[in-house]
Amino acid sequence: MSKPPITFEVLAKNGEARAGMLTTRRGVIETPVFMPVGTAGTVKGMRFEMLEDELDARIILGNTYHLWLRPGVEVVRKCGGLHRFTGWERALLTDSGGFQIWSLGALRKITEEGTEFRSHLDGSLQFLSPEISMEVQSALGSEIVMAFDECAAGDAPPEISRTSMELTARWASRSRARFDSLQAEGRDEGRLGETEAISGAQALFGIVQGGAHLDLRRESLRRTAEIGFDGYAIGGLSVGEEKDVMWRVVSDLAAELPAEQPRYLMGVGTPEDLVEAVALGIDMFDCVLPTRNGRTGQAFTSRGKVNVKNAQWASDTRPLDDSCACSVCQRYSRAYLRHLHVSGEMLASILLTHHNLAFFLDTMRRVRQSIRSGDFTKFRREFTEGLNAYEQDKALSST
Amino acid sequence: MSKPPITFEVLAKNGEARAGMLTTRRGVIETPVFMPVGTAGTVKGMRFEMLEDELDARIILGNTYHLWLRPGVEVVRKCGGLHRFTGWERALLTDSGGFQIWSLGALRKITEEGTEFRSHLDGSLQFLSPEISMEVQSALGSEIVMAFDECAAGDAPPEISRTSMELTARWASRSRARFDSLQAEGRDEGRLGETEAISGAQALFGIVQGGAHLDLRRESLRRTAEIGFDGYAIGGLSVGEEKDVMWRVVSDLAAELPAEQPRYLMGVGTPEDLVEAVALGIDMFDCVLPTRNGRTGQAFTSRGKVNVKNAQWASDTRPLDDSCACSVCQRYSRAYLRHLHVSGEMLASILLTHHNLAFFLDTMRRVRQSIRSGDFTKFRREFTEGLNAYEQDKALSST
Repeated sequence: MSKPPITFEVLAKNGEARAGMLTTRRGVIETPVFMPVGTAGTVKGMRFEMLEDELDARIILGNTYHLWLRPGVEVVRKCGGLHRFTGWERALLTDSGGFQIWSLGALRKITEEGTEFRSHLDGSLQFLSPEISMEVQSALGSEIVMAFDECAAGDAPPEISRTSMELTARWASRSRARFDSLQAEGRDEGRLGETEAISGAQALFGIVQGGAHLDLRRESLRRTAEIGFDGYAIGGLSVGEEKDVMWRVVSDLAAELPAEQPRYLMGVGTPEDLVEAVALGIDMFDCVLPTRNGRTGQAFTSRGKVNVKNAQWASDTRPLDDSCACSVCQRYSRAYLRHLHVSGEMLASILLTHHNLAFFLDTMRRVRQSIRSGDFTKFRREFTEGLNAYEQDKALSST
Repeated sequence: MSKPPITFEVLAKNGEARAGMLTTRRGVIETPVFMPVGTAGTVKGMRFEMLEDELDARIILGNTYHLWLRPGVEVVRKCGGLHRFTGWERALLTDSGGFQIWSLGALRKITEEGTEFRSHLDGSLQFLSPEISMEVQSALGSEIVMAFDECAAGDAPPEISRTSMELTARWASRSRARFDSLQAEGRDEGRLGETEAISGAQALFGIVQGGAHLDLRRESLRRTAEIGFDGYAIGGLSVGEEKDVMWRVVSDLAAELPAEQPRYLMGVGTPEDLVEAVALGIDMFDCVLPTRNGRTGQAFTSRGKVNVKNAQWASDTRPLDDSCACSVCQRYSRAYLRHLHVSGEMLASILLTHHNLAFFLDTMRRVRQSIRSGDFTKFRREFTEGLNAYEQDKALSST
C-alpha cells in the first residue's frame, strides 16, 4: 500500500503539549482525544445518538476479549464487522485482549505461543495469541488495531518485567506480520475505499511495556519503534501501581515516543491525569472512570467530584455543575439525580454517565483550544485549581 | 372557580370509538391516548427528551404510593412539585395509591378511615386515606388527580365486591371534599395561571369499581357520577381476572360513562386490548407492558411479539419491526439487541423500552387518525390481522 491507513498532523505545540489531527477512514479526530470505553460493543448506558449528536465523540474503544467471547467472531463477521453490528459509524479502536487476560490473574497461563485462560463467562478454556488477536480485530474491523502484548504487574521486579517486555516485543513482531498478511488478504471487515490521503485499511499501534523500570521502558520503546507502527501506546500503567510510578514513566517516555505519530496512554485517567499527561506530550486516552463512576453515583465536575448519594442533595435544585452545558445539567437537579440513584433507577446511571462523558470530552475540547491559542499553561493551572476550589465539594466527594 | 381545570371535546366518532382533545394546564392531549408509566418519577430507562422530541408523549403517569414513600412529600414540595423535581414539563396524571396498596396483599389492613400497610421499602407502618392521598397529590401537582379507591380481587364474590364498592363510593366523596378544600387553599404545587378555557387548577377523576359484577359496576358508576368528577376511570380490571371478565365489564360500562368527559381504563393493556377498548368508547390508557417487557427482552411489533433472547436472531441484521419508524428500528438490528440483552447491558432495556413505547404511542396515533378519517373499523381489522399474520413471529413470541 502506498497510502497509510491513517494520517496524523501536529497543528500546534505548547511545551510538549500538542494539538493535532488524526484522519481515519471513519472521520477526523482532533487530538488530544478522550475515547469513551465501549467494552461489549456499547458505551454502557449511552445511546450512540447522544455520543454523536450532543457529545460529538469521534472515536470509541471496543474490547477484543469481550467481543471475541460474546457474541463471537462469526456473529460479528456475518453482520459485516463491529460498525454494522452495533450501528456505531464513527471510528473505533480495539484493544488486543492482552490487558483483559492479564487482569484475569490466576485464570491464565502464558507461554511463548500465547495465553491460555478460562473465560469469565462460562469457565471454558480459551487460547489467545498475537495471530488470533489480529484475526479477531480484522473481523471487528476497527480503524485502529492494538498489538497483542503481555502486561506485567506494576510492582514486578526487573527480571520479571524484562521477561515480560521481551515477550511483548516478540509478540509485537508476530502481531505486525499477521496483521500485514490479513490486510493483504482483505480480511478487514471495516475496509473502506481509499480517500485522498489514506488507504482505507486498518492501522496498527504498538505498545510499550516494561513496568516501573525506565531502562526497560526505553528498550521496549526502541524495539517497538524498530518494528514500525502507525501509532505508539504506553501500556501497563494505571494497573494498581503508585501514582508517582505512573508519572515517572510517562514523564520519561512520552516525549520520546515518535513525534510524527499519535501517542496513546492506555487506561488513564482522571480529568487531572488527562491534562497532566497532555502536558507531557500524550495525544490519546481511554478510561472507564466516567462510565463506571456514573453507574456508582459519582459525578465529575469542574469543582471536583460529587457523590450524588449524599443526603445533602435531597432537595437541592441546582445542577451537578453550574458551568456545564450538557443536557443533563441543563434539565436535571441534584435532588432528582439523588432520588433516581437511591431508588436504583436506571436513569441515574444514564444521566450520570452522560454528564461524566460530557465533562471529559468537553475538558479535552478546552485542552485542544488552549493549545491552539497558546494558553495551555494557563488553562492547566485554572482547571486544576477549579477542581480543588470549593471546600464543600471536596468534603463531599468520595474516593 | 368558574372555569374548569380541563376541557374535553369529542371531535369524531366511529361507532362508540371517539377521537377527542383534552386540554390541560400543561398542554393539549389528543385522545385516545396511551400514558407511559413513570412510577417513581421516571419512565424507566427513558430520558424525557426522547419522550418529548421523538415519541411526543403528552402525558405520563406517576405513582402516589411510590413517590410518597420516596423521596417523600416534603422533598417534592421543597423542589416545587413533581414537574420541577423531575424536569418533566408536560402533563402528569397521578394515581391515588389505592391500587398499589391493594397489591401489597397481606401487608395491608383496611378500615373505614383508610388503609394501614407496611412500606415495601423498609417495612415501616404507614397509613393512607382519601384525605392524605389528596394532600400528597396536591404536593405532586399533577394535572389529573385520581380519587382514593379500594380495589377488590377480580374473582371476589358479590358481597365482598359490594362492601368494597360502597367503601370506594364513600372514599370518593371524601376525596372530592378534601381535594376541593386543597384547591381552595392553594395547596396545588403545580398551579398555573388561568388560560382562555381552563382554570389552571388540578382536575379530579373518579374511579368505578365493583369487580366482575355488572350490577355493582353500574351502581358504582351512578354513585361516582352523582358526586361529579372531571373524568371517570374504570378500575379494578387487569388485576388477574380472566380476560373475558374484563371485556364483559368494559363492554357493559364504557359507553355508559359520561359522554362529555374523558374515560380512562386503568392498567390496560396489550396493543390489541387498547384498540378493542377504543372501539368500546375508552379515551385514556396506562400500562407497564411496554416498559416492563422492554426490560425483560420482549418487543411489541406490528407482526406480534418478538423475544430478543431467541438464538434465531443472533446474526439477524433486520430491525425489530420493518414498518416501524422509531429511532431504534432505524439503526439497531435484532442481532445487536439480542447481544445487548444476553450480555446484561443496560442499553438493551433502553432501546427495547424506547421501541415498545414508540409502538404503543404510534398505534394510538394511527387509532386517532383512523377515527378522524372514518376508517377505524378498517384500521382495527388490519391491525389485529397484522399482529397475527406472520407464523414465524407467532411461533417465536413468548407468553
